Amino acid sequence: MSYALMSQLFVRTLREDPSDAEVPSHSWLVRAGYIRRAAPGIYTWLPMGLKVLAKVEAVIREEIEAIGAQEVHFPALLPRDPYEQTNRWTEYGPNLFRLKDRKGVDMLLGPTHEEMFTLLVKDLYSSYKDLPLILYQIQAKYRDEARPRAGILRGREFVMKDSYSFDIDEAGLQAAYDKHRGAYQRVMERLGLEYVIVTAMSGAMGGSRSEEFLALSEYGEDTFVRSPGGYAANVEAVTIAASPAQDASGVSAPSEILTPGAGTIDALVDQVNAVMPREDRAWTGADTLKNVVFMRVTPQGKKTPLVIGLPGDREIDEKRLEAVLSPDVAAPFTEDDFGSYPLLVKGYIGPCRIGDDAGVLLGEEALSGVTYLTDPRVADGTSWVTGANRADTHVVNLVKGRDFTSDGVIDVAEIREGDPAPDGSGPLTLARGVEMGHIFQLGRKYADALGLKVLDSNGKLVTVTMGSYGIGVTRAVAMVAEATCDAKGLAWPRALAPFDVEIVIAGKDAELADAAHRLAADLEVEGVDVVVDDRNVSPGVKFADSELLGFPTTVIVGRGLKDGVVEVRDRTTGASRTVPVADAAAAVIADVRG
Amino acid sequence: MSYALMSQLFVRTLREDPSDAEVPSHSWLVRAGYIRRAAPGIYTWLPMGLKVLAKVEAVIREEIEAIGAQEVHFPALLPRDPYEQTNRWTEYGPNLFRLKDRKGVDMLLGPTHEEMFTLLVKDLYSSYKDLPLILYQIQAKYRDEARPRAGILRGREFVMKDSYSFDIDEAGLQAAYDKHRGAYQRVMERLGLEYVIVTAMSGAMGGSRSEEFLALSEYGEDTFVRSPGGYAANVEAVTIAASPAQDASGVSAPSEILTPGAGTIDALVDQVNAVMPREDRAWTGADTLKNVVFMRVTPQGKKTPLVIGLPGDREIDEKRLEAVLSPDVAAPFTEDDFGSYPLLVKGYIGPCRIGDDAGVLLGEEALSGVTYLTDPRVADGTSWVTGANRADTHVVNLVKGRDFTSDGVIDVAEIREGDPAPDGSGPLTLARGVEMGHIFQLGRKYADALGLKVLDSNGKLVTVTMGSYGIGVTRAVAMVAEATCDAKGLAWPRALAPFDVEIVIAGKDAELADAAHRLAADLEVEGVDVVVDDRNVSPGVKFADSELLGFPTTVIVGRGLKDGVVEVRDRTTGASRTVPVADAAAAVIADVRG
Repeated sequence: MSYALMSQLFVRTLREDPSDAEVPSHSWLVRAGYIRRAAPGIYTWLPMGLKVLAKVEAVIREEIEAIGAQEVHFPALLPRDPYEQTNRWTEYGPNLFRLKDRKGVDMLLGPTHEEMFTLLVKDLYSSYKDLPLILYQIQAKYRDEARPRAGILRGREFVMKDSYSFDIDEAGLQAAYDKHRGAYQRVMERLGLEYVIVTAMSGAMGGSRSEEFLALSEYGEDTFVRSPGGYAANVEAVTIAASPAQDASGVSAPSEILTPGAGTIDALVDQVNAVMPREDRAWTGADTLKNVVFMRVTPQGKKTPLVIGLPGDREIDEKRLEAVLSPDVAAPFTEDDFGSYPLLVKGYIGPCRIGDDAGVLLGEEALSGVTYLTDPRVADGTSWVTGANRADTHVVNLVKGRDFTSDGVIDVAEIREGDPAPDGSGPLTLARGVEMGHIFQLGRKYADALGLKVLDSNGKLVTVTMGSYGIGVTRAVAMVAEATCDAKGLAWPRALAPFDVEIVIAGKDAELADAAHRLAADLEVEGVDVVVDDRNVSPGVKFADSELLGFPTTVIVGRGLKDGVVEVRDRTTGASRTVPVADAAAAVIADVRG
Repeated sequence: MSYALMSQLFVRTLREDPSDAEVPSHSWLVRAGYIRRAAPGIYTWLPMGLKVLAKVEAVIREEIEAIGAQEVHFPALLPRDPYEQTNRWTEYGPNLFRLKDRKGVDMLLGPTHEEMFTLLVKDLYSSYKDLPLILYQIQAKYRDEARPRAGILRGREFVMKDSYSFDIDEAGLQAAYDKHRGAYQRVMERLGLEYVIVTAMSGAMGGSRSEEFLALSEYGEDTFVRSPGGYAANVEAVTIAASPAQDASGVSAPSEILTPGAGTIDALVDQVNAVMPREDRAWTGADTLKNVVFMRVTPQGKKTPLVIGLPGDREIDEKRLEAVLSPDVAAPFTEDDFGSYPLLVKGYIGPCRIGDDAGVLLGEEALSGVTYLTDPRVADGTSWVTGANRADTHVVNLVKGRDFTSDGVIDVAEIREGDPAPDGSGPLTLARGVEMGHIFQLGRKYADALGLKVLDSNGKLVTVTMGSYGIGVTRAVAMVAEATCDAKGLAWPRALAPFDVEIVIAGKDAELADAAHRLAADLEVEGVDVVVDDRNVSPGVKFADSELLGFPTTVIVGRGLKDGVVEVRDRTTGASRTVPVADAAAAVIADVRG
């Protein structure tokens, strides 16, 4: 192997941002010729992108093997049956790529492989003596995302390292989980990503405990919260403590007020303050009880109405709702649906009616029969301004526990900056991140469903307890690019760069080329990965491409050569220094080896 | 990294052959815990299988990079449109895995990537100066084989190295083709496979010239021929020279004979010899003209009848027929079809009728309108015994060119041991092989279909000429296993073995274990890949597993240790020698490094 020549490399830099670019890393990776779109959310890796991907893979492989994981490789094209047994064939809904083979047999493209690993271990292992065990693979995964996004950040075909632990008891699972947590921390550090570990919902995966590794990024799709006292959670995983019951003995009986045109909470609050002012303070949105109606739809398509009651100053957080309902989803409640449930008056839904036709309307045992769930803040004894179930009418002083009840608590209101942390560790701050890794204590969900049991030391069959652990490999390339790029292009950290050093021949003089090639050969011998920009283009084009492509060190062999010097530039710091050509190899090697 | 312990390795050896095993390598790879079936034709790679696969991949990668190929990586999940433009979406028929995404968009799992590579180069390159170019990938491919077979030998998800060359002219294509030919020869040699390069049909790939690399194997699905003079071709690719025209002036006019119950060529020949004996010699099957009728079916499902006339002593070779008709296929001519074509009399089809209702029946311009193609041996002036188009009747002395013609030549008769090579290089011998590699000169088929043009040195747009080159990576693992296994199990060549050396602790004495671990540590330091069989099972079980698993060198630390010696066994030769324990590391290293 000789060093690389830019004139031969299959790379073309592009001047225009791709039309679908949403984040800088996506633009730069496409413009620098690292990746290329093949279909929505589906990318081709070009030579330099593939080199970075291989280096990221190597980091992940090293760290996961260091905790004793053994590599296997499952097919991506999988039979339906195991996913049927765990119900995920259905629960995955439209996110699963499904197909039929020539015989009409149902198959799928694996979104994650819990079922297959469980069956493999069941197939080969039978005793507690075989455990603990950690298996992993680095493999293409398929998810038919509704909104593939930002190039390789959220693709429909992507590479993931997924590992699975198998233990006889909880202590074993905890140990495997802790090992993975440590390995993932080391991976994030070696990739140079600023990250936070947050408590997460398990979602479609099931199981008891899970944490996410989020790389901090303003472009992140995940919102998480932190407190000064160390609480950290994905917003989906934040659980608000139920508010304490209050004494409502002093609250007047509920009464209706006319609120024509009170189409917003603000307008409602204004009208209530005008018509029925409080003595202690003005009414606010937090005094109102907003009742939002949805259709809850199961993966099989069965629809049932659901009303959620929450303080009027809070919105429902769609992701928190999605996480709670999963695998069901929330669909809009249509005009037709209102037609089918005439007791629900659009815009004026409330838990009950007062007056001549008084009655409790919301609740599975109430007149509508519609399930009614309320926010944890809607505690017994709290008093609310809410819909009166008549057009242009609200009711005031409606007390939970006295005038109405709910079928249960649902914790899906938005979390706000400054909200108290659930564990009392102080006010929350919100930030955004990209999910890089997710570790799950699955427990026995999959082993139960698929019958993975082993004999314990007493000769009794016991169900194995499992963990599953994923880290996005292609996504990691995007996030490293995102974390390091600047206004001029990519700027790879040394450990992950496609080449250690680029040597630019900055001029047409044959002596420049000779010196550049001599330096390249000297570096190559020392194991430095070098590319020489020998193209027949201007130095300016070469410099711009060099910054776009993001090699950590660039050596410029140009005008200075007649004075015996070359210029050494550091892409990340922007620093430049002049080095005698005779010392250039040594200087560059010192930089490369840190 | 420390050395491996058998007690920790995720491997279980099995005593029973898998129920679907067709070839020894398949049985051994499953029984030794290298692979495991996930679905028909779809396999999971277990840790040791994956190690061998990685070593085979590395050999292929080295050789393909040595000819200047650059690695990229395409998705496996691909859009329909490019394959529509080349008509392969249709032509691949049921071999293609097709699916729809959540928006109903048609997609496919890539069976091979000519279209995608063509579009990528079109996307980024525009000038002759950018060429020549060779790109490659090592990637999972998908083909919905009708008969997945023999484990990983013919799978539905398999790993292939596919490369593609791009050149401005024929000379460039030839050079790229020759480079690949050389690289493939080196790969086959490094894998230790006995192989032959044969001329091949291009099949669904299109293009002008192609050759296959066949590994010799009695289990091969490909039959090929060779001559003493160096001719070698896949049977599908053998083209028989048209027989010279003959002088038929001495041949009597055709006459009918009654041949009741002549249901076979042999019975027919007997009857003709009885009723109308020749003076010079007896009639043989080679004197009869057999006319076989099919329905030719296009990928769109359109059916047209086709009659093939060939000497009665030859059968139609189904694979040769398939190759000639592709992408169309041959379907049986049913009773209903005979009903629709009453001029074709089942069992007595011939090119014409003589007598009162005389007429030419077969041929696009003849009475039936049915296409009639004949074997190259059916030359003008040749005289035949053939069907008379009446029940229980044949006609004798029917002369091609005098009494009938055909619409053209079709070369699909079976090739037989001893047939002359088409190039005059002597009699052919037949053998079987497994297709390991296939190299194609595609020419401009894909570049034309997808518009890949570059500016030439005169500033004119010219269409690029391409080659495509595939080698089976997972299949190579199977073939290496097949070529090296014996009655006891696998026997890997050193370069591809999952471990260089196994050390068996043959006894319960702690000193044995200590010595084994010391030796393992000494070898590991020297870069030798070691596994210690430290399991709590009998030496007999360990020895049997050692032979099944196929490590090249096994060191047995057992009874001899008290006399200061260990035993070193070579799996391939079966040779065993005793070595002083102090010299064991050096002896083993000498074996490993050859």
